[in-house]
Amino acid sequence: FHAASPSSSPTPAYDAWCGVAHGCTRKLGMKICGFLQKNNSLDEKNRIASSFRDRQTPKNQLSCENSDREARYRRTETDFSNLFARDLLPAKNGEEPTMQFLLEVMDILTNYVRKTFDRSTKVLDFHHPHQLLEGMEGFNLELSDQPESLEQILVDCRDTLKYGVRTGHPRFFNQLSSGLDIIGLAGEWLTSTANTNMFTYEIAPVFVLMEQLTLKKMREMIGRMLKPLRGAISNMYSVMVARYKYFPEVKTKGMSAAPRLVLFTSEHIRKKRLVIITSLFFFSSQSHYSITKAGAALGFGKENVILLSTDERGRVIPADLEAKIISVKQKGYHPLFVNATAGTTVYGAFDPINEIADICEKYNLWLHVDGAWGGGLLMSRQHRHKLNGVERANSVTWNPHKMMGVPLQCSAILVREKGILQGCNSMCAGYLFQPDKQYDVTYDTGDKAIQCGRHVDIFKFWLMWKAKGTTGFEEHIDRCLELSEYLYNKIKDREGYEMVFEGQPQHTNVCFWYIPPGLRDMPPGDERRERLHKVAPKIKAMMMESGTTMVGYQPQGNKVNFFRMVVSNHAVTRSDIDFLIDEIERLGNDL
Amino acid sequence: FHAASPSSSPTPAYDAWCGVAHGCTRKLGMKICGFLQKNNSLDEKNRIASSFRDRQTPKNQLSCENSDREARYRRTETDFSNLFARDLLPAKNGEEPTMQFLLEVMDILTNYVRKTFDRSTKVLDFHHPHQLLEGMEGFNLELSDQPESLEQILVDCRDTLKYGVRTGHPRFFNQLSSGLDIIGLAGEWLTSTANTNMFTYEIAPVFVLMEQLTLKKMREMIGRMLKPLRGAISNMYSVMVARYKYFPEVKTKGMSAAPRLVLFTSEHIRKKRLVIITSLFFFSSQSHYSITKAGAALGFGKENVILLSTDERGRVIPADLEAKIISVKQKGYHPLFVNATAGTTVYGAFDPINEIADICEKYNLWLHVDGAWGGGLLMSRQHRHKLNGVERANSVTWNPHKMMGVPLQCSAILVREKGILQGCNSMCAGYLFQPDKQYDVTYDTGDKAIQCGRHVDIFKFWLMWKAKGTTGFEEHIDRCLELSEYLYNKIKDREGYEMVFEGQPQHTNVCFWYIPPGLRDMPPGDERRERLHKVAPKIKAMMMESGTTMVGYQPQGNKVNFFRMVVSNHAVTRSDIDFLIDEIERLGNDL
Repeated sequence: FHAASPSSSPTPAYDAWCGVAHGCTRKLGMKICGFLQKNNSLDEKNRIASSFRDRQTPKNQLSCENSDREARYRRTETDFSNLFARDLLPAKNGEEPTMQFLLEVMDILTNYVRKTFDRSTKVLDFHHPHQLLEGMEGFNLELSDQPESLEQILVDCRDTLKYGVRTGHPRFFNQLSSGLDIIGLAGEWLTSTANTNMFTYEIAPVFVLMEQLTLKKMREMIGRMLKPLRGAISNMYSVMVARYKYFPEVKTKGMSAAPRLVLFTSEHIRKKRLVIITSLFFFSSQSHYSITKAGAALGFGKENVILLSTDERGRVIPADLEAKIISVKQKGYHPLFVNATAGTTVYGAFDPINEIADICEKYNLWLHVDGAWGGGLLMSRQHRHKLNGVERANSVTWNPHKMMGVPLQCSAILVREKGILQGCNSMCAGYLFQPDKQYDVTYDTGDKAIQCGRHVDIFKFWLMWKAKGTTGFEEHIDRCLELSEYLYNKIKDREGYEMVFEGQPQHTNVCFWYIPPGLRDMPPGDERRERLHKVAPKIKAMMMESGTTMVGYQPQGNKVNFFRMVVSNHAVTRSDIDFLIDEIERLGNDL
Repeated sequence: FHAASPSSSPTPAYDAWCGVAHGCTRKLGMKICGFLQKNNSLDEKNRIASSFRDRQTPKNQLSCENSDREARYRRTETDFSNLFARDLLPAKNGEEPTMQFLLEVMDILTNYVRKTFDRSTKVLDFHHPHQLLEGMEGFNLELSDQPESLEQILVDCRDTLKYGVRTGHPRFFNQLSSGLDIIGLAGEWLTSTANTNMFTYEIAPVFVLMEQLTLKKMREMIGRMLKPLRGAISNMYSVMVARYKYFPEVKTKGMSAAPRLVLFTSEHIRKKRLVIITSLFFFSSQSHYSITKAGAALGFGKENVILLSTDERGRVIPADLEAKIISVKQKGYHPLFVNATAGTTVYGAFDPINEIADICEKYNLWLHVDGAWGGGLLMSRQHRHKLNGVERANSVTWNPHKMMGVPLQCSAILVREKGILQGCNSMCAGYLFQPDKQYDVTYDTGDKAIQCGRHVDIFKFWLMWKAKGTTGFEEHIDRCLELSEYLYNKIKDREGYEMVFEGQPQHTNVCFWYIPPGLRDMPPGDERRERLHKVAPKIKAMMMESGTTMVGYQPQGNKVNFFRMVVSNHAVTRSDIDFLIDEIERLGNDL
């Protein structure tokens, strides 16, 4: 565009046209064209393509058919070293270089996808920050005033993937979110290409409706108890909704209008996290705030976040909650909000929601269920009982990007009471939301959200649901839990392993220490603890250096560093579990 | 994967392999291979490909080279009607259908891209919500328990684009963010494919460093006054930082620990918006909160957000700010924070930052500059003077996805005082951030952010900067402002137009009424106002029905509905401006 004159013709030139006009000769082509443009014969399509550069389209007879001018581009030998961004569309004659450039990018990406699933490739090719900053074989991260050629841009794309981490690799176990779902990936590419925003029906009609229908299905999974939040409800912090519910005057007058408010969450504060939502239902940012952070941010203060005791499996003890509520009330404070976690980050524990809900009802507290990690189990008839009571929650968080394999990011919040989010957030922004539009403006969701603009995170999830069906998600969940059971059974009595907590894990989280031979006969005590604490970091560092696999570790309370294995990647097989164990033993044997 | 047995072989079968092994015969291929695998001859590559299915890779000799097994897939006639998501990778024999499916998706996307720039296509094909929900020619949005075939999934992808809005079309003027940048698009596709998270260097080494270097460049644009925020600083609400700066005890004790705090912003509350950041520097959610919403959310209360008077151009009047600060102090409240806007949403006004900064220094208030829309002008030597004083701000918001054409979403916050964001937010999450890692953990940014996980929004911006250079962004900004000047000059004295404010706009925003012939001779008064109020909605509705163009309108204060034209799309030419005027006149002539 840099070369284009502001007064250039409105009709771009098509001299560079060299796409191959492609009739509906293939089965898919036929079918798709059948939907979109029923009467267009192959001949007519060819005529359209060949006469295209001369075409003058009369006003108001514009094309909106996808099959019009449909063309398949063939890759040609293109010299990108003399091409620059300014030569791409909307530049004059920009169509051909644009198509060739995008095909080249696509080639880089599909090769990366193939290798992601290939166990003969590394999970990562580790380099220290200073090494990458110094420039690896011509990979220069610095930005300059002058443009780089498209050839260099393509090289940079390859290098970016080369020095990154293959989070979809079957042996990447480092995070709750792992795996590369092909349908989800296609959904993300399409979303990027559509490049729109969720705030009004006007500019995202299809996505707004997809979100509505998908939320309806999720609500059904939760148990038909949570009301649908239509397009009309907003992105919200569950803590804020709770505050608004009981003390609406805070919205206007600030926190001084309320008594001292108290929030409750587990003492496992590092694993028990309150998910605060930064956009309507599907939001782009993972937004894991610990409840302490939420308390600080929203003006409650860290002191007013009370930690609840947990059992040895990391589950909140309901009696402790009740005792603390009573104690807080005796001090004259107002207990407001309880966070129950369905699937903690480290132990994968599910709090007893029904018992907690009984207490919340008795004392009139808001119950939030953080199902960011565990919500996916609602799709499984075999495992959903672990969330029993979730239908009683005032609000539920559920991140399909974690256990359900949806690409990052995709998270939802559902709130039971209809209208409360809207009451909490609506402010009206006249430049976005005009009541005098010609369509039903209740589909304009933006004004009812705290945050006005929202990335389109729904499409990939909707497309995956279409492609897999509910049964496909169920099979995925069941399979991941089976693999985790396989790991648990394999190591629970194996020499050199100690489990961090006893019994079958509730989620796919398996937490364990590997005890190198040299430590196995040491008596318990500080020296053994100190040495054991260093084992997992050392093994992890060697794993990363060799690039063979990645798994997380951390300390927890008085427990020294242990491995936390999780499975959410659909590419994982028992052989990968076996590989991990072999690799830990290979690397840790001499420690 | 549904079909795969948990005990299946760790080595995928490659029987379906039909990719075309492609040597380094093309110039680009040569050069890229030159970087990555210098000594691999074509013969050797063919050998690798042909022997691949038998290959046993010894442990720790894994491949991390992109050029290994490099292949170009050719499209083949694939019948997708009997293929399902479960047949794609990681399924056995899944490589071939995966590649064919992705190539088919790519074809849909590249066709969409081409048409986006084609003025003979519609901007949108409008349908009411109930029409889309009822199903348009087989486009069924409902989700079901059973999977759909990949053929249906591809049809759904086409339909999703068909019924959407082409935000990159040269005649889409409806939002501040418009245009489809090809480099940015490639960046987004790559980001989706990499599918990782910004929270640690461990899993996003390249992206973390790119963010650091890009922020450094942005800081230079602001004037070398704002300190770099390295990887070590966090996503933050500027209001929260301000509160923490002056009243750090609120973090622990809550709002009751502070006096009544007061925030200031323009009376043009609907256009003057405080940008609250939901992730580190580049965040996925647009997160436009009005400052009133921010005040309500963070516990200040709407009452404590004071609106400042503006002049007729929508710029804050500094004397009014000072008078209100004095008045608030006299009541015993504590003035905390001033939001100055660089580029308001409707008028495109720039507040006089230097004068506001003088007052903030005098009374010790936090100065935030919201440059979400106007920040891009910092790239232009011709226009950056409009932000004079920005280097004195305590914090600055700048959204490259608005004026700079970066795909949605990409936003940055820069804070001058080093360490304050970290003090405000750090909580430590042991399961993510282990101090005993083998690399420099100051590159792990997540714990220092309120929000733990963050989408990778930096890559597309970095890649665009590489491809255009600083000079390319400058040309883009200058060109958009020239086009806006062209529009202003064209209509300011034209019959049937009235400008909403006098004088050359500061940004690309041109605000005007179109007066249909029937209203031109009416005397001023309520009847004329009422009729004029209905003109823009009617014209807009007809525009959308005919799909020719889209432009925003809204009322503002006592001003009835007017059009707000903005230019940020690099595809726009003077002819598109002419087209808009012609179209308004064609549609509005008989109103």
